[in-house]
Amino acid sequence: MIIIDLWFSEFHTKTVKLSIKVTKQLFSQNSGIQQIDVFESEEFGRFLVLDGYMMLTERDEFIYHDMIVHVPMAAALTHLLSKKDVYVLVIGAGDGGAIRELCRYNCINKIDMVEIDEMVVKVCREHLPNTACCFDDPRLTVYYQDGLKFIRSRENVYDLIMVDSTDPLGPGEGLFTKEFYGNCFNALTDTGIMVNQHESPFYNNDAAAMQRAHKRIVESFPISRVYQAHIPTYPSGHWLFGFASKKLHPLDDFNPDKWNSLELKTRYYNTNLHKGAFALPNYVKELLENVE
Amino acid sequence: MIIIDLWFSEFHTKTVKLSIKVTKQLFSQNSGIQQIDVFESEEFGRFLVLDGYMMLTERDEFIYHDMIVHVPMAAALTHLLSKKDVYVLVIGAGDGGAIRELCRYNCINKIDMVEIDEMVVKVCREHLPNTACCFDDPRLTVYYQDGLKFIRSRENVYDLIMVDSTDPLGPGEGLFTKEFYGNCFNALTDTGIMVNQHESPFYNNDAAAMQRAHKRIVESFPISRVYQAHIPTYPSGHWLFGFASKKLHPLDDFNPDKWNSLELKTRYYNTNLHKGAFALPNYVKELLENVE
Repeated sequence: MIIIDLWFSEFHTKTVKLSIKVTKQLFSQNSGIQQIDVFESEEFGRFLVLDGYMMLTERDEFIYHDMIVHVPMAAALTHLLSKKDVYVLVIGAGDGGAIRELCRYNCINKIDMVEIDEMVVKVCREHLPNTACCFDDPRLTVYYQDGLKFIRSRENVYDLIMVDSTDPLGPGEGLFTKEFYGNCFNALTDTGIMVNQHESPFYNNDAAAMQRAHKRIVESFPISRVYQAHIPTYPSGHWLFGFASKKLHPLDDFNPDKWNSLELKTRYYNTNLHKGAFALPNYVKELLENVE
Repeated sequence: MIIIDLWFSEFHTKTVKLSIKVTKQLFSQNSGIQQIDVFESEEFGRFLVLDGYMMLTERDEFIYHDMIVHVPMAAALTHLLSKKDVYVLVIGAGDGGAIRELCRYNCINKIDMVEIDEMVVKVCREHLPNTACCFDDPRLTVYYQDGLKFIRSRENVYDLIMVDSTDPLGPGEGLFTKEFYGNCFNALTDTGIMVNQHESPFYNNDAAAMQRAHKRIVESFPISRVYQAHIPTYPSGHWLFGFASKKLHPLDDFNPDKWNSLELKTRYYNTNLHKGAFALPNYVKELLENVE
């Protein structure tokens, strides 16, 4: 009997790591921008790793993608349904999961996606067909560019900007700067919303990154709220998202009946959870208030 | 330079493990009932391990204890404040964390605690003084007995029963049976509440245990709701608690102002989060509904 004892480990801090037994390495190459790996595992199915950090697994990606897409879409839905053209920008998200969820909304007319690393999209189309399933949607245009540069030339265009970035290290670093958030503000219409992945509040380094991002967003947007989800494969399992907006409030302008009338089937998101996700623990509220 | 590279790992499934670098093993002994270990670590401070499973760490125990105590206490507070005698039973909880939080309520007159393993209390008093800090409270009586047997002889006594058990393997097994929940029902007053740790919905084995417990509780209690918290050191980080009750509803009978007027400082719990914690993801709702 031959036993292959192969484990992928991600260090959440220097002294804490999560390890997943791997059945097979499906892809491993440096794109010039970052190291890209895809592994197969019994518990999580296939998973994508960029520069050693787990980006998504087949088993729990539905949680992240439900929460980054349906929360802002549901909050803005009444407003968006009254508009003639709805235009969305997605930055990052080369795995296609956010695109997949956005494409379920008939009210969206155009989606721009800006991904810095073309190889990520190619690899995901080949190895992660469950997320990279909607790249042929006619409403979608993909730009292989630096999101930071792309956004500079856009003004008053988008109803929703989704910053589905990697962590604030390596290629994703510029997507956590004040300049970037200011440019997002300018690229949005006067009722626009920006949503971003906001790191975790638990481990000190993640919490510091979360505070830095929050401080800069609060300085750029009149409305800025943070919401949470349970994502087992991300550090601590407690993950945050930022909801920043010029006018629309994520709860006050949210109409549950309107979203429910669309009859979208989701495995994580629902309209009660939408409200609950904004009810943060005291220690997280304090971290945020300290930089507001 | 001498480097000690010592790691504690807990397997969440056969192919997933969380590992914590250990600076020192403070205690290790078999009590006859179970194996008890206490370790020291940089990230989580000291942590208690029973039969290889992490029970609590100094760093994140506040989350578990806030949620198992303040949710039922806040839900029942208006009612409890109108009573002459308030009597609470805690089963398990040898680490003292639940007792610590209960002792903050002046309206509680008596607390019985039933812990099967006296050595757990001794070890926690020595090594985990931040949780095991209220064993000398005059309202507390500790019984070193099997909770399953203790509860059989009690009828119409307690306003609140808290089942702060280990997992449904080993000594905690009997605390997940229909007989036990039925006996808890009988031991409660006619407005009584039972709260239990309810496992995690994410990994298949945990989810199955959660469903089994839920089915039995639903069969025993007219009101049965499940709520959630983010607990980084428990499998998947997504942990559930069960709220079962004869009359009081965890949300409909909940008065946030009343609880806030007590001015208890908490690091996780707050009255908005109380409501949000009951808003479960769709996949969790489906797991529960399948056995209701």
